[in-house]
Amino acid sequence: MSEYVEHDNGGISVGLVEKKFHTFAEPPNALMLESGAGLGPITVAYETMGILNSDKSNVILVTHALSGDSHVAGYYAADDPKPGWWDIMVGPGKGIDTNRYFVICSNVLGGCMGTTGPSSTNPTTGQPYGLDFPVVTIGDMVKVQKVLLDHLGIDKLLAVIGGSIGGMQVIEWVISYPEMVTAAILLATTTRHSALAIAFNEIGRQAIMSDPNFNKGDYYSGPKPDLGLALARMVGHVTYLSDEAMRSKFGRRLQNRDNLAFDFEANFQVESYLRYQGSKFVQRFDANSFLYITKAADYFDVGRQHGQDSEVEAFARVTAKILAISFTSDWLYPTYQSRDLVKVMKKNGLDVSFCEIEAKCGHDAFLLPNERQSALINRFLNRVSEEEHDAL
Amino acid sequence: MSEYVEHDNGGISVGLVEKKFHTFAEPPNALMLESGAGLGPITVAYETMGILNSDKSNVILVTHALSGDSHVAGYYAADDPKPGWWDIMVGPGKGIDTNRYFVICSNVLGGCMGTTGPSSTNPTTGQPYGLDFPVVTIGDMVKVQKVLLDHLGIDKLLAVIGGSIGGMQVIEWVISYPEMVTAAILLATTTRHSALAIAFNEIGRQAIMSDPNFNKGDYYSGPKPDLGLALARMVGHVTYLSDEAMRSKFGRRLQNRDNLAFDFEANFQVESYLRYQGSKFVQRFDANSFLYITKAADYFDVGRQHGQDSEVEAFARVTAKILAISFTSDWLYPTYQSRDLVKVMKKNGLDVSFCEIEAKCGHDAFLLPNERQSALINRFLNRVSEEEHDAL
Repeated sequence: MSEYVEHDNGGISVGLVEKKFHTFAEPPNALMLESGAGLGPITVAYETMGILNSDKSNVILVTHALSGDSHVAGYYAADDPKPGWWDIMVGPGKGIDTNRYFVICSNVLGGCMGTTGPSSTNPTTGQPYGLDFPVVTIGDMVKVQKVLLDHLGIDKLLAVIGGSIGGMQVIEWVISYPEMVTAAILLATTTRHSALAIAFNEIGRQAIMSDPNFNKGDYYSGPKPDLGLALARMVGHVTYLSDEAMRSKFGRRLQNRDNLAFDFEANFQVESYLRYQGSKFVQRFDANSFLYITKAADYFDVGRQHGQDSEVEAFARVTAKILAISFTSDWLYPTYQSRDLVKVMKKNGLDVSFCEIEAKCGHDAFLLPNERQSALINRFLNRVSEEEHDAL
Repeated sequence: MSEYVEHDNGGISVGLVEKKFHTFAEPPNALMLESGAGLGPITVAYETMGILNSDKSNVILVTHALSGDSHVAGYYAADDPKPGWWDIMVGPGKGIDTNRYFVICSNVLGGCMGTTGPSSTNPTTGQPYGLDFPVVTIGDMVKVQKVLLDHLGIDKLLAVIGGSIGGMQVIEWVISYPEMVTAAILLATTTRHSALAIAFNEIGRQAIMSDPNFNKGDYYSGPKPDLGLALARMVGHVTYLSDEAMRSKFGRRLQNRDNLAFDFEANFQVESYLRYQGSKFVQRFDANSFLYITKAADYFDVGRQHGQDSEVEAFARVTAKILAISFTSDWLYPTYQSRDLVKVMKKNGLDVSFCEIEAKCGHDAFLLPNERQSALINRFLNRVSEEEHDAL
């Protein structure tokens, strides 16, 4: 069951992981989506780390945000230049300790990193779906994760953990499958996007859809809407950082020169950084997936979807123990949204711990090395794991 | 000298104004720009309101921000549907009282509302400049305003007033022509853009330059880069508002429907609002002017340009009395930047009043009706006007 292998790499313990796939919902048994549309077949790409214990009580599901994938940590090969996206947190002896826990992470429905999404082949046409792919929701993403767990024979999660749009999936998990989730960790997330967050996503989508190469989403056989996707990524990057982080990271420093150039090239380092981030992103990400995942995030609205417009009602059946963390400089998912969420859960008598971590780096903080965050997560997992063990 | 006319319009006193032009720097007497390039001829479009008094001691220069123009207030005709951009502030009995003061406002150099800019005809080619227009600075804009005042026979300003990029021009005025400026009002502005502000401007510029219709700025005889300019405007609009303003203005309200549409049309009101603002803007604004004016704002750096990297040094020769106002929810030019500016001026022993106004509407607050702002400006102008009179 476990793909985790200890590997000696010059004295540093590196976990080698492998991307696996599970395909289900073969026609005519399409998965019914929240929109009412059916979708199938669906392939889900996933990776695991650590050893599943005998009573399957050490399973942690990690959910990823917009640009993440199943490759949460470790390396595919010993000479891999880069580990997974949350390697600072997940691994032997780390915040999410793979010596103790069996960690699963899968690419979201609508993504482009192995799980079925708009770039996948539409079985009815033999061509990529493009915009014929149905609009999916956070609930649909979680439904697919549930099918994967069923396939793996796992009926209980010690914890679900995710940040940002990953945190929305965590919220969806504790509400939709309360009996399956012992604990949940919510990082820099919200029960519903503010108008500001929707606005930035919409600008990104408009940038993509305005690109002449977009061709109504049908660009897989020709040039891609790279300029639009790069712009969308640039907007994203600014919203993930904070004023303060950008000031210390770039300030007004010039790029490779002492004086102003009096032209429209990238004169400031921050301009050069954004252009680079944009151009790098288009090499690994599908523009249509950007549309679908951001739309799912914008649609997410716990009260509306689960509580007849009441968030308190939406959490009524939840039993999971909760750790929620926000970051002082996160202006995309500000602390007040986490506080509102904590209030709602407390009104339902839930066991909730909340911490606002002082951090300069904005929304991205949850992805960056932070001893406080790692320690909070580690201790919380130890606690719920021990309480679970005592209860057995 | 005055174009201000009292006009009876159903009992409401409406000022009819007229756009005028002054052309100078006819070759070979080109105006020398900060970049070292020469530019000429230069036409400056301007409007005035109120009556110039006999000793010319009641002149107020209003400077405009990115999308403004010389039409600061009043109407061109009695049946005009809309007044100038700051009609709430400028007019008979208003914060800037045209019964007392003679108000001048001109379109900035690089603009597209009558003053020479990239859409103007390049005399050497007979075609629009496009990107052959030299990169201009806030200092160059102010230099042109100075030539206009010389032309109008005005050698002393009771006050210079502006917000945002207009505020940068005010700062440039008090530093470059200290002997000409009695008082200055700085609204929601900064001595230099943060990396965050540069980043948003750069995204706007990239959106324009990525538009295939941009054609390296040479689009005047063909289709315009409207999609890029609309995107740039959408980004701008989000940065001018605040999280709170967007929450109360739009929240998560849907556009003309009760349920989610599960498509990529504008489902939320905020999406619809942004698309509308973008499409409206392209009808009145030139994309190249957007590039040039935002670049001038990004380049503006008082310490670098006037103080050998010291802002205190830059303000050393300033004598103007200052009123600076910031707004609590302005995250583009946050209060800490105004406070830094006030500190620098106080170190130079200047007469500075500073007020942070509680406002929900973000950076745009200075353009919106606000009794506190109007009263502060009105009282400050009365004070400096009386002190000036007493001193004579």
